[in-house]
Amino acid sequence: MEHNLSHTISLLTRTPAALNALLRDLPEAWTSRNEGESTWSAFDVVGHLIHGERTDWMPRARIVLQFGETKAFEPFDRGGHVRESQGKSLAQLLDEFSHVRSQSLDELRALNLRPEDLKRRGRHPALGVVTLSELLAAWAAHDLTHLHQISRIMAHQYREAVGPWSAYLGVLQCAGHSSP
Amino acid sequence: MEHNLSHTISLLTRTPAALNALLRDLPEAWTSRNEGESTWSAFDVVGHLIHGERTDWMPRARIVLQFGETKAFEPFDRGGHVRESQGKSLAQLLDEFSHVRSQSLDELRALNLRPEDLKRRGRHPALGVVTLSELLAAWAAHDLTHLHQISRIMAHQYREAVGPWSAYLGVLQCAGHSSP
Repeated sequence: MEHNLSHTISLLTRTPAALNALLRDLPEAWTSRNEGESTWSAFDVVGHLIHGERTDWMPRARIVLQFGETKAFEPFDRGGHVRESQGKSLAQLLDEFSHVRSQSLDELRALNLRPEDLKRRGRHPALGVVTLSELLAAWAAHDLTHLHQISRIMAHQYREAVGPWSAYLGVLQCAGHSSP
Repeated sequence: MEHNLSHTISLLTRTPAALNALLRDLPEAWTSRNEGESTWSAFDVVGHLIHGERTDWMPRARIVLQFGETKAFEPFDRGGHVRESQGKSLAQLLDEFSHVRSQSLDELRALNLRPEDLKRRGRHPALGVVTLSELLAAWAAHDLTHLHQISRIMAHQYREAVGPWSAYLGVLQCAGHSSP
């Protein structure tokens, strides 16, 4: 389907509450373990989502609207959340994600974007020319890629425990294509 | 990690609320579309989870405890949810899932399973001998396989809309290994 701003906002609005319902007060055995060396835990993913709110999505939307293709976005720092998350609890990160997402969406709504605005072009430092519409659709799909990843990370913790059922559980066949 | 009954119950408790927060009142463009012919929408997946509560997980646990390996489980009907979901709204299915899951967990807790109970063996019609511990771990991982699937189904709707970002979105590389 085509990008629909209202549908995008509906999804972006729900992600913090969905992650909160899934992860808050869950035993750390689920939330602090990862899939092996150099992979992320659910805790890390929430930190990454917060970092994206601060440095990726709305900051880039502002650059498109202000500079068009003449100014490339700042490259996104995939490790940028590590220091910001240090010493915090998962509950704190969930609260923080909810807060910064709400701020982002207030700002997005206040832009009152018209269809012609969504066609405006910007410059991604690696992907080249992109539209504001693509940026906003990618923001929603990025939430889903990380919900997909969190489901996989948590299922991985029971890889052995499920015994022969592993053959039936698609999430255990997932090759971990969500980066990182 | 090994199976831990308390961790399993923690996860099983949260899934209905997580799906509710993600899906309730979301535009149908997200929840009623699938990934192509013979695939499921998010609506279908919630119906399937309800059907599993009624005919799969706790009914099978009871068979293990009552009959051990002498009686194979009833085969699970992967299309069993279709008729039961017909004519219902997604909001009704979310309410129903929350209700039947709560009943299942009440029953599970009331069993007061001891470590030696978890080692008891049953017979899966296709997988052969399985333990009660494996059955309960698979129940939790099954929730995660379907959260993983729902994320992928919804992201698929924006496959074109994200433009060049598709290269960075792991969920769009997922080959749809969640069955069906």
